[in-house]
Amino acid sequence: MEWIDNGGFTSAVGFRVGAARCGLKKATDDPDVALLVSDGPAAAAGAFTTNRFAAAPVRWCRHRLPRDDARGIVVNAGNANACTGRRGEQDVLRSAELAGGLLGCDPDQVLVASTGIIGHPLPMDRVETGIHGAAGALDHAPDATRAAERAIMTTDTEPKGCAVRSTLEGTRFVVGGMAKGAGMICPDMATLLCFVSTDAEVPSDVLEDVVQRVVDATLNCITVDGDTSTNDTLMVLANGASGARVHGDPETVAAFEQALYAVVSELAGRIVADGEGVTRVFQVQVRGAAGYGDARRAARAIAGSQLVKCAVHGGDPNWGRIVCALGYSGADVNPDTTTVSIGGVKVFEAGAPTGEDASDPMAQPRVDILVDLGTGDGQAAMLSSDLTEEYVRFNAAYHT
Amino acid sequence: MEWIDNGGFTSAVGFRVGAARCGLKKATDDPDVALLVSDGPAAAAGAFTTNRFAAAPVRWCRHRLPRDDARGIVVNAGNANACTGRRGEQDVLRSAELAGGLLGCDPDQVLVASTGIIGHPLPMDRVETGIHGAAGALDHAPDATRAAERAIMTTDTEPKGCAVRSTLEGTRFVVGGMAKGAGMICPDMATLLCFVSTDAEVPSDVLEDVVQRVVDATLNCITVDGDTSTNDTLMVLANGASGARVHGDPETVAAFEQALYAVVSELAGRIVADGEGVTRVFQVQVRGAAGYGDARRAARAIAGSQLVKCAVHGGDPNWGRIVCALGYSGADVNPDTTTVSIGGVKVFEAGAPTGEDASDPMAQPRVDILVDLGTGDGQAAMLSSDLTEEYVRFNAAYHT
Repeated sequence: MEWIDNGGFTSAVGFRVGAARCGLKKATDDPDVALLVSDGPAAAAGAFTTNRFAAAPVRWCRHRLPRDDARGIVVNAGNANACTGRRGEQDVLRSAELAGGLLGCDPDQVLVASTGIIGHPLPMDRVETGIHGAAGALDHAPDATRAAERAIMTTDTEPKGCAVRSTLEGTRFVVGGMAKGAGMICPDMATLLCFVSTDAEVPSDVLEDVVQRVVDATLNCITVDGDTSTNDTLMVLANGASGARVHGDPETVAAFEQALYAVVSELAGRIVADGEGVTRVFQVQVRGAAGYGDARRAARAIAGSQLVKCAVHGGDPNWGRIVCALGYSGADVNPDTTTVSIGGVKVFEAGAPTGEDASDPMAQPRVDILVDLGTGDGQAAMLSSDLTEEYVRFNAAYHT
Repeated sequence: MEWIDNGGFTSAVGFRVGAARCGLKKATDDPDVALLVSDGPAAAAGAFTTNRFAAAPVRWCRHRLPRDDARGIVVNAGNANACTGRRGEQDVLRSAELAGGLLGCDPDQVLVASTGIIGHPLPMDRVETGIHGAAGALDHAPDATRAAERAIMTTDTEPKGCAVRSTLEGTRFVVGGMAKGAGMICPDMATLLCFVSTDAEVPSDVLEDVVQRVVDATLNCITVDGDTSTNDTLMVLANGASGARVHGDPETVAAFEQALYAVVSELAGRIVADGEGVTRVFQVQVRGAAGYGDARRAARAIAGSQLVKCAVHGGDPNWGRIVCALGYSGADVNPDTTTVSIGGVKVFEAGAPTGEDASDPMAQPRVDILVDLGTGDGQAAMLSSDLTEEYVRFNAAYHT
């Protein structure tokens, strides 16, 4: 497996993207509508927010995936089309019909995603102009890919795309992807959109399983602010254009899953690093838990603690906050068997401080926190970001 | 029931307090050790953190409460004596022995509480000097009460005390209290200390029940940052000096509970308003839930959402964040039966925005958010505070 320089969604054969600006974003001149297209029918699977107020486009896609004949994805940023009632559903249908007409396919073969402010109806006249513009700009050139990556951004500071090349039984294939993140980032999932292409051929039921495993290990292991949005969406399109095939046997599934994991994991890391106001990221690894559930609860409590996030921001080795979060995590924790290390420096062991100073590892651009509960072999990890004044300033002002 | 002007812990008959400075707090010249004493044996009950890393003083008190012969409470601020292993336990014992010697009682009749930094052994030579000083200063005068209120503060900006007078079968009695809060404030409970006196006579088993109900309705319904600390402690001493008696019958229990609720609820409100960096408080009321558990989960998710807290800080009626938090709360929520109001202005109903503008109520010093889930009669409320740049600045710098 190798990374492709400046790779992205269109690094896979048989995919084109287009972007256009129709005025949904107020703060920038960036494009705000993108169309992602597979030239032929593609197997498609997705993973979506668990939020009970799932947005209209999320509900549209959930009901239509997995499928074997997807043709494209219409995306807009600047308006989430969430909590918009029946009108929101009609607007999704209208977008899918319009894009389907332009691509020469059924509306059900078109997937839809939105991100942005909640609770405002989409200005459909603008969106329709945007879809027409994006369709007219369809291309597989890197410039088109960057434009589409910019189109899906909200408060992200930079576009996010990447691609890897790998082989299935000697035949080369590519997995490419793009994502946006920034705020409302939390496992299960985030206000994030992530779209992945591959020119491998993957049966849609296999794709569905692989997508869920990869999401659990990547996008469900990151947090910026603990808010799980209404619009989180990952969708993968597999069009088979490379001739490489996943048969459903362990070997080809594993080779494909490895490539998909690489792309989504890379994008997940970039989403955390580019979170609102983020200056520093930290990883929490929990080992020795009674089971996976406990390991995850512990990692999540530490990664999500406002006080731990502030300590990471200040480069302050105040490990008491780590232990405190562990203590209220709900995980089965025994203080006497627990050890806590920061960047390899053990600070807590057998119920008491070791006296070691973790100031240096805590001041690094990336901080590694390792907790061993000493009671079993459950493990989990979470990637998180510091909490900064900039985050607060930004989110107190966003919207009106 | 009436409020007592400038009331506090010593407004109840037969209680004295003393405070002294021994150098545990670095940033201020405030006293840092306090001794709270009942002149005679008092019934005592408490409620404590659910954190698995409960501090040594919490474990000491938990094992000794409820009881009928408590004489006093030793408190220090500046050091939590949490995660300090066996040494921490020895230090608690030493404090109780010293205070017991000075009060002429058994160490088991002395309760102990600490708040401050986690993971540092107590400098016991200083603490012992502090306990001697506090014992020498014991008095029931308002100056002594204010000094004790100051002694238990950490990052609080002002001391917190109050008292009410009520009657039991025609006999007057007083409930007085003091508290500290500021950071790591979350239900179940917080880094808060709250000590309450009463000169009513209350059997310790009745006191235990009443305390738990009052805490559930007050201190467990507030949040500042969602971090449940290792040291949260509420303790109530009832010495019977007024001659007013709670018998265990519904009438006298209710009269006493009302007075205790008034004092603890008042202190809980002041704790939120004086949270680190707080400029604005908001209450989340949830009604119409399938049950109490769902109502509580919903209220807690909204009250704890970083993005809702930022919106309150900015006075921004971005109700999408409220609905979003509701959606990931884990409560059973049906968008079509849910209504959301801010300060009486209905902004969301039947799955869609109403179009009403809640800018005015969102800009008030206190913001009221009402959510009706429309599916049952479960209800719950939470009091929370905004998230500010000052909070982050403060907690990135605290400690080292």
